[in-house]
Formats: sequence, structure tokens, C-alpha cells
Amino acid sequence: MFRTHTCGELRLSDVNQVVTLSGWVQRSRKMGGMTFVDLRDRYGITQLVFNEASDAALCEQANRLGREFVIQVSGTVGERFSKNANLPTGEVELIARSLRVLNGALTPPFTIEDATDGGDDIRMKYRYLDLRRPAVRKNLELRHKLTIEVRRYLDEQGFIEVETPVLVGSTPEGARDFVVPSRMNPGQFYALPQSPQTLKQLLMVSGFDRYFQIAKCFRDEDLRADRQPEFTQIDCEMSFVEQDDIIDLFEGMTKYLFRRVRGVELTEPFVRMAWADAMKYYGSDKPDLRFDMRFVELMHLLKGYGFSVFDQAAYIGGICARGAAHYTRKQLDALTDYVKRPQIGAKGLVYARVEADGTVRSSVDKFYTPEVLQQVGKAFDAQPGDLLLILSGEDAMKTRKQLSELRLEMGNRLGLRDKNRFVCLWVIDFPMFEWSEQEGRLMAMHHPFTHPKDEDIELLDTDPAAVRADAYDMVINGVEVGGGSIRIHDPQLQAKMFHILGFTPERAEQQFGFLMNAFKYGAPPHGGLAYGLDRWVSLFAGLDSIRDCIAFPKNNSGRDVMLDAPSVLEEAQLKELNLEVKL
Amino acid sequence: MFRTHTCGELRLSDVNQVVTLSGWVQRSRKMGGMTFVDLRDRYGITQLVFNEASDAALCEQANRLGREFVIQVSGTVGERFSKNANLPTGEVELIARSLRVLNGALTPPFTIEDATDGGDDIRMKYRYLDLRRPAVRKNLELRHKLTIEVRRYLDEQGFIEVETPVLVGSTPEGARDFVVPSRMNPGQFYALPQSPQTLKQLLMVSGFDRYFQIAKCFRDEDLRADRQPEFTQIDCEMSFVEQDDIIDLFEGMTKYLFRRVRGVELTEPFVRMAWADAMKYYGSDKPDLRFDMRFVELMHLLKGYGFSVFDQAAYIGGICARGAAHYTRKQLDALTDYVKRPQIGAKGLVYARVEADGTVRSSVDKFYTPEVLQQVGKAFDAQPGDLLLILSGEDAMKTRKQLSELRLEMGNRLGLRDKNRFVCLWVIDFPMFEWSEQEGRLMAMHHPFTHPKDEDIELLDTDPAAVRADAYDMVINGVEVGGGSIRIHDPQLQAKMFHILGFTPERAEQQFGFLMNAFKYGAPPHGGLAYGLDRWVSLFAGLDSIRDCIAFPKNNSGRDVMLDAPSVLEEAQLKELNLEVKL
Repeated sequence: MFRTHTCGELRLSDVNQVVTLSGWVQRSRKMGGMTFVDLRDRYGITQLVFNEASDAALCEQANRLGREFVIQVSGTVGERFSKNANLPTGEVELIARSLRVLNGALTPPFTIEDATDGGDDIRMKYRYLDLRRPAVRKNLELRHKLTIEVRRYLDEQGFIEVETPVLVGSTPEGARDFVVPSRMNPGQFYALPQSPQTLKQLLMVSGFDRYFQIAKCFRDEDLRADRQPEFTQIDCEMSFVEQDDIIDLFEGMTKYLFRRVRGVELTEPFVRMAWADAMKYYGSDKPDLRFDMRFVELMHLLKGYGFSVFDQAAYIGGICARGAAHYTRKQLDALTDYVKRPQIGAKGLVYARVEADGTVRSSVDKFYTPEVLQQVGKAFDAQPGDLLLILSGEDAMKTRKQLSELRLEMGNRLGLRDKNRFVCLWVIDFPMFEWSEQEGRLMAMHHPFTHPKDEDIELLDTDPAAVRADAYDMVINGVEVGGGSIRIHDPQLQAKMFHILGFTPERAEQQFGFLMNAFKYGAPPHGGLAYGLDRWVSLFAGLDSIRDCIAFPKNNSGRDVMLDAPSVLEEAQLKELNLEVKL
Repeated sequence: MFRTHTCGELRLSDVNQVVTLSGWVQRSRKMGGMTFVDLRDRYGITQLVFNEASDAALCEQANRLGREFVIQVSGTVGERFSKNANLPTGEVELIARSLRVLNGALTPPFTIEDATDGGDDIRMKYRYLDLRRPAVRKNLELRHKLTIEVRRYLDEQGFIEVETPVLVGSTPEGARDFVVPSRMNPGQFYALPQSPQTLKQLLMVSGFDRYFQIAKCFRDEDLRADRQPEFTQIDCEMSFVEQDDIIDLFEGMTKYLFRRVRGVELTEPFVRMAWADAMKYYGSDKPDLRFDMRFVELMHLLKGYGFSVFDQAAYIGGICARGAAHYTRKQLDALTDYVKRPQIGAKGLVYARVEADGTVRSSVDKFYTPEVLQQVGKAFDAQPGDLLLILSGEDAMKTRKQLSELRLEMGNRLGLRDKNRFVCLWVIDFPMFEWSEQEGRLMAMHHPFTHPKDEDIELLDTDPAAVRADAYDMVINGVEVGGGSIRIHDPQLQAKMFHILGFTPERAEQQFGFLMNAFKYGAPPHGGLAYGLDRWVSLFAGLDSIRDCIAFPKNNSGRDVMLDAPSVLEEAQLKELNLEVKL
């Protein structure tokens, strides 16, 4: 037996007990004739004491222990003289009677502390050491707890977890598939699923009624900031439901998870905001509602006074930063630089302050009378001390997105985006299609199986771009954590959708024939949604990146630097797969 | 709202309530002026009644419903005249007031009944219809329940589920890897994991202490009877443990699962049998202990009497089939044919009966005196009415395996293998190595990370083939449901193991460098095991094949005939991956 207790377990009530612990040497220090060792395992840290006076040889052995050595120690629990209130075990220590080194350790390439001296690259290469740091381990413990609670909730709601295959067929719509050559079927390839979308719809056709799966998904995309080639989805689907049934159930799940995993009670119903309103008031389909600061449109107030920038604009709008009128010229210049960064792309920033006496003073005073500026102030319901920030542009949608970035930045600067406060909302009524400049055609905004809103179906023939969908996203603190839709279950409507999306009947049949065929045998009305597990964990953990809540993530080139994967294959292996590499 | 209740929910207490149901038309029949429709969903079947006298148009609409139509019906719950005791809803019926067809259905290519008329091939092509059959759906419900309970148990025991990557590096030891070309790393490939073995060991190095994962694993093997290219493992690992710690914990889990999922109380501790004994007494490393019928060796009794088959044998042994002395010549010939089948390969079968008066009469009476045969009977502790079946051969191990097949066959014939009785055992003390004729070297019987038994470590240098391992399998009813081992945590011992297995230090470094490197930074003693989830579900479900407990299985050519995968790629896709197919 390697241990009687863990390193997080001993308390004052255990004093005088004889115990055995095993773990890693976190640090050791010699003070006079005493050697103190902090022994660490997953559960905590316990102080070991070696006394030169009572056992010189044992103490000498302890003095030779290096950082991260794995040891087993037996002895008696004693009460500490100087207690450590920061540790649950801080009132006791283990007075060592015997010591066994289970394994030595080289000096690790970075310190195993939350505030480590290791950079990203070295930590990823030695990820097995990085994972020893409590801050990283806690993220994975949180991930575990979240999935346990998701399963508990969905199981209680009658959902069945069904594993769908990882080796599937290629479905070229959307992002690129990873493919897998088949040795038994020469020249043919499986694809790894981008999501279990079509398979979960087949399960509804099968009558499974309520399905979920915590599923690995794969996308061979160029990896931007916070993407991984493999990621995990909480994937759900329900039969005989309308949009509200799904929203209600998963709003319930979200509240349950916040309560059980994060200790946060969300008592209010979540706001449900139409996509058009989200774009109008926040310039984003995932507005952060921890703070309001909604857009005010100013076209009718500011056009036609000879300020050419505004006069030529297709959109003029602004936000009101409460109490920020004291911003210095330097701070305002920094904001201007911020919106002019190429990632944001605004041409400039107009600002106005509401003075203590209520007058509004702006950076474009020479074009506007005090009365006009007063009206602008009123439009924002601005009070003395408020700062108004105004953007304009010739493309309304682009300008709104720029203003959205400015809004978020002001939220940060004014401390309105507390990571420990959570505001959830549903964005609903998404457009069915969006125009792709690249493809020169309408693309499905959600995916081609999304059901149009019943009242918009007649627009499919006359004005498809105006059709709204029964599609919804859940947004928490400005992060899209999940989304879904009611699906089409009528084969004729599905065929029409493929037609609008530019599929020939042959291509639709080739790619989705199995699904359309299945729909001919009695498909129930159904819908569902999928959450990004990685996103959700990072949100709960207060992390800026999903990478830190994944045990073995890949870098921006899709490489696992610890495993050194991917790598070249041996010639024989390629030959067996009937493949040749052409660089 | 599509329904107020499910089709499995209504009872006598609901009579007179107005309700709405949705589901599939299982069958309908017209009796006089009444039309009865059985409406099915996942939860059950409810009888609908349409009365021509009260609403002729509605009844006419009901008469046009086809099998598997999806409908929504509202009406009043009534008490049935002729109740159906076989259905939980059999005391009531829904007196329909309105009917809405939600979707039509073509006539399905086979009947949606447990006893279907569909063959394997058609059922797999239309798997979404096959999954509607309650018998198939129940297997997947069982699978769900099993994984829920596995997670509950392990979570309560302090295990953390950690997702390890699916895109990993290739590790050529063992079966063939599936590989995935990387577009971003031209000419390089990921591999899909055969198991998370090395990664879970790294998690132990990371101090995770107790890890588990229900993980998809992949093997590009030629698919024999009951293999799938992707399969699911309950994968576990623990630190600071000895073999007994692991066995105790997972014996506890097994009992918990039997109780919670199968309603079976296993009160006795599981038998622990050394591998050598399993081979000696049952000719198998996974003996079915629902019945004893252990081997009796007869070399010392039957050699040297001039019966050349026995005189030349390296092994003579038999089993005693209690009460089977009445077997006719025809039955005995059938048994002889059975053991002579090429899959088994015995040369012949010798039998002996114990007569009512205690005398033993055999098929080789002319070589043996009644006294010798009497001694043979005694060796089996045979009683009047028993049948002795004896095999011999020049290769002891092969003959034992033949005798094992005969034992199982007799178990079947004598009704000793009840699918609703479960006997679990641990087979322990496996040999460390086995000789591979094909490779001309010792191979790891479990895997190269398995820890040899401490007392056998000195044999590594002198007689490696005699070394036993801290490896163990769990066997239920003759099925190996899982297995594992204590792992090597000492980098020197691991290096020695690779040397014995014929790895050059360079190849060991290339393939397992990351693991051996990790072991230099403080690896704890650790061990674990993995269960085959598919096997376990099929065992609980009483199925003969794992295929029926997988939602979308592949056929023996590794094809998903429903999705028609794998398939050929477009030229552009291959080019992007820098690949050329050479057939």
C-alpha cells in the first residue's frame, strides 16, 4: 500500500495518527536541525518534517531530495507550531519516521507553480509537467465536473447518449473535412465528422426522441486565434418540438450548470433578442449584455450640416460611455487609434462630452450648433459627465461591427465586463441565408437543414434573402456558447432549400441522399442545438483561450509538439494505403 | 405544442382527460364502424380509436394512414373494453377528435417489429428504420445507462474524465493505425489512437492520480467476426497503487454495474485464477466458469498401453460431462465431427461412459484393461451416468485449446451457459512475453509498458519467457470484458523491456521518446485497465455480436453501407493534401 491518506486530507483531528503519504516534492528547506518538505499530490500539500536530532540519517536522506522527486513517507501527524491558514492541511505536519524514494526527477524546465516561469512553447512541449500546475489541473477538473452535470441533467430529462461514428462519409458543405484512407477499400477515404448533424437527424427519424452526445468534432481549417482542429460539442436533438420547447429546456440546463458547477444562481429568464435587434443595438450577433451601452442611430440628427464624413455616411451611430467625460485628449487619441487599427478599420472617431452644466461639446463643434448637439445628447439620454463616441461609414453593417468593437473596448476600460458576472441571452430569428461574395451565391447561415420561419416560407420564392430561420444561439457574456435550429423534416422543402443553395438535384442526392431518403420514411418534426464544450469550460474558468482547458491541445500549425505529431509515414505504410505523397 | 403526453404514459387514472399524442403508425385495423390505430413512440404504444358514427370524415382520414406515417392526434382518454395486459397503456385508448398528418411514409422495406422480416444487409442500409425496432433501441438505451452508471461510480471514486486527442502520432507496435493526412503539415500524417495508453500514463506523470475516459479507439485490422474498425473503451488509470488496489476497485464497479444496470446482485468475491491454472484446467485465458467441467490430465494413466495415438501424445486430457452417458452413437459422432472441424483441428475424440453399475466402457476398450479405465473414471470423480470426453495431441497448448472448445460446446449442449447467470473472474499472473513465430522474437503479451512481477525481474536476463507480469483480465461468462496491468515507472526498466522486445535504443526513442522522457521527471507508480464497452453492453444485453449494440456499425469490409462510406475523393481535395492514389 502506497498511502493511507492523500496530501490534502490530514487535519488537527488526525494528530498522533500514524499515516503514510505519497507524492511529489514541491519544495524543501532546511532550518537549523530541521528539514521541511512540502509534499504535493492532486488533492493538496502536506508539510513533512525531518528532525536531525531524532534521526540524522533520515534527515540527511531528506536533504538530498530534489524538486519533483516522487516519495513515500510514513510517520506521525503532529500539530504545527506556526500554522498556515492558506492550506486546508496547514494546521498539521507529518513527523517523518521513514522515507522511500519511489522515483527521482530531473530538474523540470520550468517551475511547477501557478505563476510559472515557463513560456507557452516549453510548457506545451512538456505538457505533462505543465498539467501538474494546480491552475491548469483545475481547468480540467472543471471540465470533468461540467460534463458529469450535463449528462446528469440530460439523463434526467430523458435524453439518451448515442455514440455516432467517427469514421463517416465526406460532406463538402462548410469547412474542410479531415480524411482517412481505407486500406480495405483501396483508393477510398472516410471523413472525420465536422459534427454529428446528419446522424443525429437520422436518430430522430429512428424515433430516439431525445438524443445527446458529448462528441469529438473535426475541422481542417486554418487555425486562427482560438480554434483547434479537434474540438468537443455537447450535441443535442429532440423530436416533436417547437423552438420554445428547445429554448426552455436548455435554458433550464444552463441555469442548472451555473448553479451546480459555478455556484451562480441565474433567476431571471434569459433575454430573447431578434438577430436584427442584436445587430441594430449592439452591432453583433453575440452581444455582451453585462453592460447596456446600446447603439443610438444619429443619421436623422447629424446629416446635412456640411460635415462631409457624416453627409456621405450610410450609417452614423454612437454609444454613451457613462461618466467618461473626464477622458483626456491622450485617452481619446488612444481610442481613435484603437478603432483605426486594421482589424477594426474605422476611418476616425467623433466624440462629445456632456459638461457639468449640461452643454454638449464635441470634436466637430464647428459643423453643429449647440442645439443640434443638445439633441444628440438627448438621443443618448446623456447626463453631465458622460462621453459620447460616434462612428460613421459607408457600409452600415461594417460600421456597426466597428462600433461593436468600440463598445466592448469601452466596457473593458470602464470595468463593466466582470468575469464573475454572467449574463445569458438567446439571439433568435437569424436570417436563413447570407450572401457569399466568394461563392457568388446564397449560403445557409446556420446549415442547409435549418427550417425557415413558417410565416417566411412564401418568401423563399420571391425574396430568399429576407427569409428568417427558426435558428437560435445562446450567448453568454458576448461568447456564443451554442446554437441550433428547428430542422426541415419535409423532403420537398429540403429539396427546395438545396435548390436555393445552388445544389443540383444530382449533387444534393450524392451528398445528402441518405438523409433525404430517410425523410421519406416518416420523419418527425425535430430540432436541436450544440454547445461548444471547450468554450463553455473556458467561460466558467475565466480563461481567455480554449487551449488551457484542453489536456493536450495543438498549436496554431495543428501540431502536437509533445507527441511531435503529425509526422511522415514509412514508405511501406503508404504503399499499403495505395498512396503517394507529392510535395 | 406537439404532444401533452408520450405514447407510453397514459393509464386508467387519465380517463376523461383531453390529451394530444404524436408518433408513428405501428398498425391500423378496421372493425365495423371503428378504426383502431396503434401509435408508437420511444416510450410505448397507445391505441387510438376513430368512430365512424361520431365523425365519419375523421375516420375516413384515419383509414388512409399508412404504416410509419407520423401523426398528431388529440382526443379524450377512455377505458378499453378489451384490455391488453401486455402493454402498460393497455387499459386505455385515445378516442380521437382530431388528426394531423405530420409526415407521410413510404412502405418500409422491412417490418418494424422485433421479429422483422428484414435481412442483415437491408437492415444496415436502412439502419435508421432498423433502429425503430424496440429490440435494437433497447440495446442502445442499455448502452446509455451503462455509461451513465460507469461515470457515476468513477466520479464518486474521485476519478476525473480527461479527453485525450483523437489526432495523435503513429505508434507502430501492435495493430495498424488509421492515418490522417495533414494539409497544414504537407506530407505528414496524424494517426488515430488504438488506445489512449501512453497519454493516460502521461496523465499519471502529471499527477492526475485517478483518470478515466470513455474513449473511441481505432484499429485498421482485417475485420473478423466481431470486430469493428472503431470501438469504445472504458479506459482507467490510477497512481500509487498495487495490483490488488485496482482489482478491488474495479470489482466494486462491476458489482455496482450489475446491480444498477442489470438488477443482478453479485455477492461473492470474484475468483482470481493464475493464467497458468486457467490454461491447465480450462485451456483458455478466459474460461467460462458458469460451469466447472475442468480438465483432468491423463498422461500418467493412459500412456504406454500400445494405443499409438496416446503413446505419441504430448498431452492427453479430458472433461467429464455429468449425466451425458446416454449420448447416442450419432450424438457422439457429431461431437467428433465438431472437434475435427478445421477451426478446432483435433484429430479425433475418445469417449468413455460410466455405466449404471460403475464400470467404465470406452471407445478404446481394446487397449485398456477395466482397471485402467476405472482409474480414469476415478480421476474425474465420475459417477454412473457420466460421459468422459478425451482429446490428445502432440502440442499440449493446441490440444488444451481444442479441449476448451469441446468443453464450451458441451456446456451449450447441457444447458450450462444460461445468459441470465453471470460468473466473473480475474485471470492474473499473465506471462510477460509470448513468442511470435511470425516476427521471430518475443512480443509483449499485454503491451511493452507492463510491469513484470517483482519476484520475476531477475529472470529478465536469464529466462525472459518465464517472466510473469502484473497483468490481469476480467472475464465474465467466458468473455474477456477488460484487462490491464501495473505499468513500468522506472525509465531503466522500461529501456530494458524495449531491449528485450528487440527495439534499438534509437527506435525506442523515436517511438516512445516522449514517454520515456516524461518518466525522467518524477513518474509515480501506476497502473490501470480498460474495458471494452461494446463487449460489455452485448454481454448485458445477451447478444451474440457487438454490432447490435452500436448505433451505426460497419460491415466486415469496414463499410458504412447507409452512408456509403468510405468513398473516393475529388481530385482537388487530394491535391490539397499533396496525395496521389496509386491503385
